[in-house]
Amino acid sequence: MSLGEFDLIARYFQWSQGQGPRRAIVPNGDDCAVIAPAAGMQLAVSTDTLVEGRHFLSTVDPARLGHKALAVNLSDLAACGARPLAFTLALTLPRVDQAWLAGFSGGLLALADEHGCELIGGDTTAGPLAIGITVMGEVPAGQALLRSGARPGDELWVSGWPGEARLALEAFRGTLVPPLDGATFDAVRLRMEQPTPRVALGLALRGLASSAIDVSDGLLGDLGHVLRRSGVGAVMALGALPISPWLACCPQAEQHDHVLAGGDDYELLFTAPTSRHAEVLAAGQAAGVPVHRIGRIDAQPGLRVLDGAWASEGPAGQPVSNRWTSFDHFRAG
Amino acid sequence: MSLGEFDLIARYFQWSQGQGPRRAIVPNGDDCAVIAPAAGMQLAVSTDTLVEGRHFLSTVDPARLGHKALAVNLSDLAACGARPLAFTLALTLPRVDQAWLAGFSGGLLALADEHGCELIGGDTTAGPLAIGITVMGEVPAGQALLRSGARPGDELWVSGWPGEARLALEAFRGTLVPPLDGATFDAVRLRMEQPTPRVALGLALRGLASSAIDVSDGLLGDLGHVLRRSGVGAVMALGALPISPWLACCPQAEQHDHVLAGGDDYELLFTAPTSRHAEVLAAGQAAGVPVHRIGRIDAQPGLRVLDGAWASEGPAGQPVSNRWTSFDHFRAG
Repeated sequence: MSLGEFDLIARYFQWSQGQGPRRAIVPNGDDCAVIAPAAGMQLAVSTDTLVEGRHFLSTVDPARLGHKALAVNLSDLAACGARPLAFTLALTLPRVDQAWLAGFSGGLLALADEHGCELIGGDTTAGPLAIGITVMGEVPAGQALLRSGARPGDELWVSGWPGEARLALEAFRGTLVPPLDGATFDAVRLRMEQPTPRVALGLALRGLASSAIDVSDGLLGDLGHVLRRSGVGAVMALGALPISPWLACCPQAEQHDHVLAGGDDYELLFTAPTSRHAEVLAAGQAAGVPVHRIGRIDAQPGLRVLDGAWASEGPAGQPVSNRWTSFDHFRAG
Repeated sequence: MSLGEFDLIARYFQWSQGQGPRRAIVPNGDDCAVIAPAAGMQLAVSTDTLVEGRHFLSTVDPARLGHKALAVNLSDLAACGARPLAFTLALTLPRVDQAWLAGFSGGLLALADEHGCELIGGDTTAGPLAIGITVMGEVPAGQALLRSGARPGDELWVSGWPGEARLALEAFRGTLVPPLDGATFDAVRLRMEQPTPRVALGLALRGLASSAIDVSDGLLGDLGHVLRRSGVGAVMALGALPISPWLACCPQAEQHDHVLAGGDDYELLFTAPTSRHAEVLAAGQAAGVPVHRIGRIDAQPGLRVLDGAWASEGPAGQPVSNRWTSFDHFRAG
């Protein structure tokens, strides 16, 4: 790309000063941006790259892609209970396409604006389309939600309706018989292409959840990280899983597959002491997202999935086969 | 890449705990790393991506590439007078090549170790080779060196021997007649492939330099950023430019081209009041890198290049043609 084209690209990523204070003391444009967490705050940092053909299709709406590129990073902050502060953008572009840039930056900066998360630095290069974001947030010292805090007896919760994004993926793949009707397809496609990071829920769970992770690789895979890091096990009841109304079209086994191993959900999976059950429900309500109790942490390592619902004593039913329980072994902690 | 391959990759990037304290309160492996600048410190953040074919050749030694990927980011911290603290790595790889990964991570982590800069997060994807790094450093509140602080009367300085990397590039391009001898080629190639970020100099210039930038796009192009941001102009003397002994083989006009517009130098270009001349020299000596006074800031916008040396009153000689003065217009501030 010529230097003139770089200037053109930079124009699409000027931080809108319309809303809220600037967080950067020295903004985008010097060798470094300079920021400072507030007194008593620590900085939470995460990085994620989306690559065309691997994480998204070339045909995706650029505004949705801009939204998603930041959303998956904000989801990591949410899982730590951190408030978004700032981010950097490394954009690799095959060509300068002004319509695409306008859409992409529009979707990206709208979500940034919504969360008061300032674009403080960037780098643009020519090459195959890829979007790298490093996001920074602040969390009170010692209060970050970690994967390692789950304790035996804690309840296991998940937010929202995992599995919807996977249903959209299957629709794109053409594996659904019958195919989805148009309205359902549009709805689940939006969930896949424009996920909502659960930032408000993450903030509400500070000091309440004992552990948290965001569900990006599938609920069971991500649960595996929590169990290993915490040195505990869990028991879940299939009947306690939240089944999205959009999944009603699938056979029950597929519904469970999508919820437990769908991926790309960006919901929060977290644990909290039983004594704080009502507070967790209230946190979900305050954050505007339903939270579902799906299991219980216990001391015995590994995951046990029961075929019943939630009974007065907890997850009920007979153990199901290893159909899902193998999922929690497939990744190293 | 399979999940097993991801684990393999992750193995090469475990932070060595051999030296120095860990900066991360919650290290690499949770949804976010959590870090905290020391009391009274602000955080300087910069991001740079290297893409194969654009920023490096596929044949480059992977250890040198790992070094350079971090060095260009540390150079941005140096230009702000920030002390390196931590970085994230977004690595896009076409395949899992263990020999390449061992070399790359070795070069990367050796430089990180040298500067106490901790790898706190990362993301690995399959795709065309690209290396994205976001680096964080700390700087005392209000003391970051900026591009905007140059004042009329300040002296203009550059560290080291800009132009050496460009000589290597020309050797690779086969444009040099006669070609470089083997020892010279090896020396300048090292300068191009494994640049030294001037971190110690940046720290020594805190409270001393009035402005600073790192020279990545060529001395004049980067000087243009300082002049525009500061709302000033400058006068330079060709005879005051540092000419690397390695450049002796080139005709004089080419020597000046390489020094003034070579690029990929990662030296610091900075300004300081005349009254602090001796302190600047001492800062260079303490940091182990020579610093050269090459010009003077004045109130008249734009850049004037004189053909003489440094006289008692400053840059001397006749104005040269627009051969180089056009360089400072080619990029927006």
